[in-house]
Amino acid sequence: MREPHRIEASPGAITRVPGFRAAGVACGLKESAQPDLALVVCDRPATAAAMFTTNAFKAAPVLYDQALLARGGAGRDATSTIQAVVINAGNANACTGAQGLRDAEHMARLAEAALGLPARSVFVMSTGIIGQPMPMAKAAAGIEAAAKELSTAGGAQAARAIMTTDLVPKEASLRLDLGGVIISLAGMAKGSGMIHPSLASATAPHATMLAVLVTDAAISAPALDAALAGAVGASFNRITVDGDTSTNDTVVALASGKAGNPPLEPGTSAYASFAQALGEVCTSLAKQIARDGEGATRLVEILVQGAANDAEAELAAKAVATSPLVKTAIFGADPNWGRVLAAIGRSGARVDPGRVNLWLGPIQLVGAGEPLPFDPAAARAALQEAEVRLTGDLGLGLGQAMVWTCDLSYKYVEINAEYHT
Amino acid sequence: MREPHRIEASPGAITRVPGFRAAGVACGLKESAQPDLALVVCDRPATAAAMFTTNAFKAAPVLYDQALLARGGAGRDATSTIQAVVINAGNANACTGAQGLRDAEHMARLAEAALGLPARSVFVMSTGIIGQPMPMAKAAAGIEAAAKELSTAGGAQAARAIMTTDLVPKEASLRLDLGGVIISLAGMAKGSGMIHPSLASATAPHATMLAVLVTDAAISAPALDAALAGAVGASFNRITVDGDTSTNDTVVALASGKAGNPPLEPGTSAYASFAQALGEVCTSLAKQIARDGEGATRLVEILVQGAANDAEAELAAKAVATSPLVKTAIFGADPNWGRVLAAIGRSGARVDPGRVNLWLGPIQLVGAGEPLPFDPAAARAALQEAEVRLTGDLGLGLGQAMVWTCDLSYKYVEINAEYHT
Repeated sequence: MREPHRIEASPGAITRVPGFRAAGVACGLKESAQPDLALVVCDRPATAAAMFTTNAFKAAPVLYDQALLARGGAGRDATSTIQAVVINAGNANACTGAQGLRDAEHMARLAEAALGLPARSVFVMSTGIIGQPMPMAKAAAGIEAAAKELSTAGGAQAARAIMTTDLVPKEASLRLDLGGVIISLAGMAKGSGMIHPSLASATAPHATMLAVLVTDAAISAPALDAALAGAVGASFNRITVDGDTSTNDTVVALASGKAGNPPLEPGTSAYASFAQALGEVCTSLAKQIARDGEGATRLVEILVQGAANDAEAELAAKAVATSPLVKTAIFGADPNWGRVLAAIGRSGARVDPGRVNLWLGPIQLVGAGEPLPFDPAAARAALQEAEVRLTGDLGLGLGQAMVWTCDLSYKYVEINAEYHT
Repeated sequence: MREPHRIEASPGAITRVPGFRAAGVACGLKESAQPDLALVVCDRPATAAAMFTTNAFKAAPVLYDQALLARGGAGRDATSTIQAVVINAGNANACTGAQGLRDAEHMARLAEAALGLPARSVFVMSTGIIGQPMPMAKAAAGIEAAAKELSTAGGAQAARAIMTTDLVPKEASLRLDLGGVIISLAGMAKGSGMIHPSLASATAPHATMLAVLVTDAAISAPALDAALAGAVGASFNRITVDGDTSTNDTVVALASGKAGNPPLEPGTSAYASFAQALGEVCTSLAKQIARDGEGATRLVEILVQGAANDAEAELAAKAVATSPLVKTAIFGADPNWGRVLAAIGRSGARVDPGRVNLWLGPIQLVGAGEPLPFDPAAARAALQEAEVRLTGDLGLGLGQAMVWTCDLSYKYVEINAEYHT
């Protein structure tokens, strides 16, 4: 048997969890002939938790899912009935008014009918262009087709069907021994542009960051909520591609209980193990998104430590991660550390310039606020690796935060200037 | 005589103000052979006011000028002695530690000696690369040479000498009839990248936005302070190219009193006229900076109105102005209004989606939060004009703010990825 708790990114992650089937089909929502509609279905009602974008313009499926959760339909009580997720790419169903709300609900009804599930048992997620009505005939045909193709080998195709400008699917899975019961945990995600998630429980907007997490663990709804909030806060909420928070960002987690473990409750070591594993899956998916950011040639990992507190560390790290000057310098492999300090200095985090240290990978560039001599060739080499690491120490306190982003290339401009509505 | 109060952007603005001389010379601080050091000198001690970047990493010349102002040397009392400004491009003298502070002070001393002025009578401004020591031999030679070339025709050359990645100099002037006394008011500025000024009185950091404002009006120091703060708040603090606030941003204003008007005091109509005129000069310069942003092909003017208050309107307008997705869509002339709404929605301004209206130039794209039919060809044409106007009305209150930015092009990436430290 595979060693438990070793994360994997190989294809078909979500359908490696016992009890989950999936499918991805092409129904013409994308202009290309690529798959654009996915279904993920559990063999039993699952406990559900979700987090949504904080953008004020929330897409119709976000509003639909939020209402579903608020109603207790989704794992909020003993009669939890969430059993599937329908996801489409090609159209975000955002800024689409009252018709958009009807369309999102209709997609749920169509999926429930095709799967033989009761009302209010399906989450809806959409990504794609904003402000155009959902082509419902295509979506309906896609739901029908996907329901017929569901299989325990369908995870990889589902992960492909939710892609937009993504170049690669994002998947992660692991197994975990919880007191002798092996539980499986897996997720898939999409996102490449309009990536700066700011997800909150039970509120959210226009998304380009979507993630579905599935497990066969038994866990109470409040415990799943808490574990998800912790995992998302340190993963999806710590990535940025372009600083633009979407109207559709959604993360849902479904826990079937099929593994038969005693239900996980906060405060227990089994819960802590599960929560940590969920964090690992989310972090893996989040880093896959940053690495595949629009036009990206490198993943950039920014650690700020020594801040007055964690919130200020996050402010500073995100200022660096969203700085076009930093991101273009990394694309150009130029160790222009002045741009990094300038971004930290404008972030709002408390800074005493004379205490700041900065490293590029293992190379210290700044000590106590002043330039240190360094080997430019070594610095350029560190900037040409697939993963670039910047570490800033503010020398003030114990606050720290890790953030992931990518560089800013010509290709970013091409993707976003030549993609026409 | 030219009609008073008509703004002009023609060359040599600052030396059109009686009593001011200027020069710009090449002393080798830039790699090119272009002019890189400017002097601006008044024929008498002038009342001075200044505003500086709020970045925590303040460049040495910023710290020097702040200390000068704090000491009352600069127009803070009847013995105001500020009479000149020395400005260099090619080196920001930022993140340069104790040596940087000594170098900034030394530049002031050299200028004072070359001009025969008393100590503490010269402001220093620097722009260029961060983290490298100022080549003082070159700077000293430049100050000597510029002092010899000072003339009442030197304004245009001075405006060129302070450019970095700017393609064109930024100048503006006007004349104003204050109760029968004609006063002159002019300014020059530089800035193209690292442009997201956040200037405050008596505090500031690494600048790429520099401006010098000169007038022959007589005005008290507190009145000049107040007029400058108002003018900067609605002009330089309302532009952004890349969202990156510099370590050197500085705006200084010198008022010589040579025009002989009764000193302007807040609360009078003459002061109000002067303050408005100063605002016009600053707005002209600020728009020139946004229009010449790195890689810009268009000036973008964003007006948000109907916000709950002015501060929220500014939040919303700046979120749109710093959105890479909006800026690349404008570069691509794509009326992708969903990106504009998404930026407003993530800005933190209060938004009721069902009340939002959006216009591109005269074309309404969104009404009460829902898409309106529009002529795509007309929208594309509006996006291809040299000035693109976006107007959002949030329908909540009386708050409004105007912000200027530019589009995001391939050239932006080229300038910033291929410029090496």
